[in-house]
Amino acid sequence: MMIDLNSDMGESYGAYTIGADDEVLHFVTSANVACGWHGGDPSVMRRTIQRAKELGVRVGAHPSYPDLLGFGRRVMQITREEARDYLLYQIGALRAFAEALGVQLQHVKPHGAIYNAAVKDRELSLGIAEGVADAGGDLILVGLPGSLLLKAGQEAGLRVAREAFGDRAYNEDGTLVSRKIAGSLITDPDTVAERVLGFTRGTLKAITGREIRVEAETICLHGDTPGAGAIARRVRERLEAAGIAPRPLGEFVR
Amino acid sequence: MMIDLNSDMGESYGAYTIGADDEVLHFVTSANVACGWHGGDPSVMRRTIQRAKELGVRVGAHPSYPDLLGFGRRVMQITREEARDYLLYQIGALRAFAEALGVQLQHVKPHGAIYNAAVKDRELSLGIAEGVADAGGDLILVGLPGSLLLKAGQEAGLRVAREAFGDRAYNEDGTLVSRKIAGSLITDPDTVAERVLGFTRGTLKAITGREIRVEAETICLHGDTPGAGAIARRVRERLEAAGIAPRPLGEFVR
Amino acid sequence: MMIDLNSDMGESYGAYTIGADDEVLHFVTSANVACGWHGGDPSVMRRTIQRAKELGVRVGAHPSYPDLLGFGRRVMQITREEARDYLLYQIGALRAFAEALGVQLQHVKPHGAIYNAAVKDRELSLGIAEGVADAGGDLILVGLPGSLLLKAGQEAGLRVAREAFGDRAYNEDGTLVSRKIAGSLITDPDTVAERVLGFTRGTLKAITGREIRVEAETICLHGDTPGAGAIARRVRERLEAAGIAPRPLGEFVR
Amino acid sequence: MMIDLNSDMGESYGAYTIGADDEVLHFVTSANVACGWHGGDPSVMRRTIQRAKELGVRVGAHPSYPDLLGFGRRVMQITREEARDYLLYQIGALRAFAEALGVQLQHVKPHGAIYNAAVKDRELSLGIAEGVADAGGDLILVGLPGSLLLKAGQEAGLRVAREAFGDRAYNEDGTLVSRKIAGSLITDPDTVAERVLGFTRGTLKAITGREIRVEAETICLHGDTPGAGAIARRVRERLEAAGIAPRPLGEFVR
Repeated sequence: MMIDLNSDMGESYGAYTIGADDEVLHFVTSANVACGWHGGDPSVMRRTIQRAKELGVRVGAHPSYPDLLGFGRRVMQITREEARDYLLYQIGALRAFAEALGVQLQHVKPHGAIYNAAVKDRELSLGIAEGVADAGGDLILVGLPGSLLLKAGQEAGLRVAREAFGDRAYNEDGTLVSRKIAGSLITDPDTVAERVLGFTRGTLKAITGREIRVEAETICLHGDTPGAGAIARRVRERLEAAGIAPRPLGEFVR
Repeated sequence: MMIDLNSDMGESYGAYTIGADDEVLHFVTSANVACGWHGGDPSVMRRTIQRAKELGVRVGAHPSYPDLLGFGRRVMQITREEARDYLLYQIGALRAFAEALGVQLQHVKPHGAIYNAAVKDRELSLGIAEGVADAGGDLILVGLPGSLLLKAGQEAGLRVAREAFGDRAYNEDGTLVSRKIAGSLITDPDTVAERVLGFTRGTLKAITGREIRVEAETICLHGDTPGAGAIARRVRERLEAAGIAPRPLGEFVR
Repeated sequence: MMIDLNSDMGESYGAYTIGADDEVLHFVTSANVACGWHGGDPSVMRRTIQRAKELGVRVGAHPSYPDLLGFGRRVMQITREEARDYLLYQIGALRAFAEALGVQLQHVKPHGAIYNAAVKDRELSLGIAEGVADAGGDLILVGLPGSLLLKAGQEAGLRVAREAFGDRAYNEDGTLVSRKIAGSLITDPDTVAERVLGFTRGTLKAITGREIRVEAETICLHGDTPGAGAIARRVRERLEAAGIAPRPLGEFVR
Repeated sequence: MMIDLNSDMGESYGAYTIGADDEVLHFVTSANVACGWHGGDPSVMRRTIQRAKELGVRVGAHPSYPDLLGFGRRVMQITREEARDYLLYQIGALRAFAEALGVQLQHVKPHGAIYNAAVKDRELSLGIAEGVADAGGDLILVGLPGSLLLKAGQEAGLRVAREAFGDRAYNEDGTLVSRKIAGSLITDPDTVAERVLGFTRGTLKAITGREIRVEAETICLHGDTPGAGAIARRVRERLEAAGIAPRPLGEFVR
């Protein structure tokens, strides 16, 4: 059983601090590092990669729509070519810091609204996949299972990884329950850990109570939810107690 | 006699167009491509590098202060670490496009106010040089002869290139006459070409009329001055008529 | 017969110049001045209002999504409250310049994608109308005839004005032919002038050739189409030759 | 004895939260509200003014250089005209929210680097004063005692207010001790309260131990220092215990 734990990191910006990076980084195997378009700035990027390196956490790019004001959480109608070039720009910027610190980029996980929009938007997904492919370096594209994004990634010859969310409720069809609905966010560490263990067997209890199948190579632990550090710690402990040592995507995704 | 002709390129942004890129690109050997912080956007960056490649022009990064509103022409008090990280970010972003198009970055020429501020600012110069060094790839750092920027570049182990300006008047001490002073900008193609020929011999007539020495490996032809295309054409023709074939910096700077 | 001629103005930004403001301003009665979010900057705003004042042209705000990179031409999913606050911010900023120059703001015309999105988006339209209402000053809201935007404006107690486009082809249902379709943009000055005359009678030939009804209080003359100045001149001349003196919206809209 | 207590407010931006606004707002009489250029966004501006209104706190504009990345803390070389127009833009934007909420703007206090730069920069000070004067409304300009900023404000016919800092150490000449020097920031609530009481008598102990004179109409309580809420509470309590009820600038500055 191979599983990766990922978390969004380095989303602080200038004088603004966000996320429990320092705590969560101890328990994940892959860090998705913001590239300055929804959060993150050059100094934060350097610091975040440096810290990930020290803790043996692999690093990926976490590119976004150009929307700092909206923290990349608002869909924008951009063209396929714009998506491609926006991705390439951000990956390149982040990679320069990684290489300067002797770190190789492992993956790309689009952030927020562009991640969600790409689930069902073919043109956008093609643009994203092309941007990642243009960047070279055998990067792994992370997306939702069954999304057009992962389909586009495969067509572009990229390695892809399916992502599940330990702290989010699921509908029976495997989609996430909207954040606007009560119970969509799970904050009890034991419950989250239990669900993550379920993922390693490919099963999950949907919000309706029915058991569904969810297959994933990587599980997202949010760094900005209340108690993020405690949740990450519990998940990691429970996995290891079950004999499962999380490993970074690059070690097992083909 | 080895001389390079460079020009600032790719400074258009979104719906905004600036510069006579298409004309001037035919006559230079090195293009300094904006990286999105004072001008340029991901799509413009791609297009500019593509066009340079087609015409056999070498490509470098043209990074700036973060000041789109001021077109990078206003000094900002940033720290050495910020300078380093701002440079690295922009170089990385541009390099991703270059590599995607099979082009190797040749040089880095800071833009506008950060270029000028670095002439006499030791801390800023060190930060810039560190950012370029961090980027790796044996990049050549372009700056004003005698500047602290080139000194810092040499100390950081970088190859450096001295730049002269064919369309700007000089003071006797080798500094540029302020743009605010009448006669500081030279727009007659033949006069500019004559001065460029002078540079190849290391001599130049200062605004006072006295002959001074100006040594340079590369000569800047501005793309946004009136008649930029005609000037660039004349300079190139006059150089070649004198038996001097301009060559990109990467071919002769050590 | 009362008709206003409007044009988008002041969309230059920093070192970037766009639009034939100086030419077109001579022929219109209302100027929609950009507020810095898709184009325009504080200095351009001041200059544009000053020039409009000198020529006796009335001034309105031309607010946008926060998208300088996309020139406000890309739909963004913002909330009703965000729309309201984004509008109010931009109107307030522009009004400060107008008042400093002794000019009273006359109207608000949303720019580009937010204008188009509001045609059919009820929540967005409500937010825009609330922002304009919050600004006070009896501002006239300009929008497409039949749009949800104008409906929301009326419900908010605002004066509204319907807008027609002299240089754009229409479908039979009164909507604009997409810019992607050949023939959607009309650049012949006489044809544009002919169509504008038609608007003053409420009739127009659709792209299919069939005559349709289009009622409007104001007609947009684009300042960034090729030959914009010549088109504006011809429209004005033909209107006056027909005995119709264009008048600013504020003089006749109730 | 008339004294105003002011604090910088509304500097949060999008997903980013900064400052202890909710706590500090209970104890001050004037709030300096960020206008979106170094912090603050339209929604934060509305919320902050609304909250100040509920608590009976007067509102002013807190405009900045255009530098969100640097939180307005880095000097930029802008022209007098740019300063004027940047100020006017931000004041206008903020005032639109104030007026929509039935609140009258009381004052303008430049933020961070532009505040400090204006102490000794005549051209910048003139530009700032002109921007405030252009905004009309009898706004009070807040600045450092003895600064060129206040001098320019007076020449422009503005009401001005001198500001002192309860939590900053002073040099003997009445300037602030640089933040880089140990002991420059005072965080003990009683010590700060003691110093504020001193200001009401016009006296203060400099970092050298010597007593100096510091005259001010308003005292700044920072909202982003550790324990900001507790400090503000203590200052207010000690003032009132001494029979001094802080009052907003607008009630006593002429």
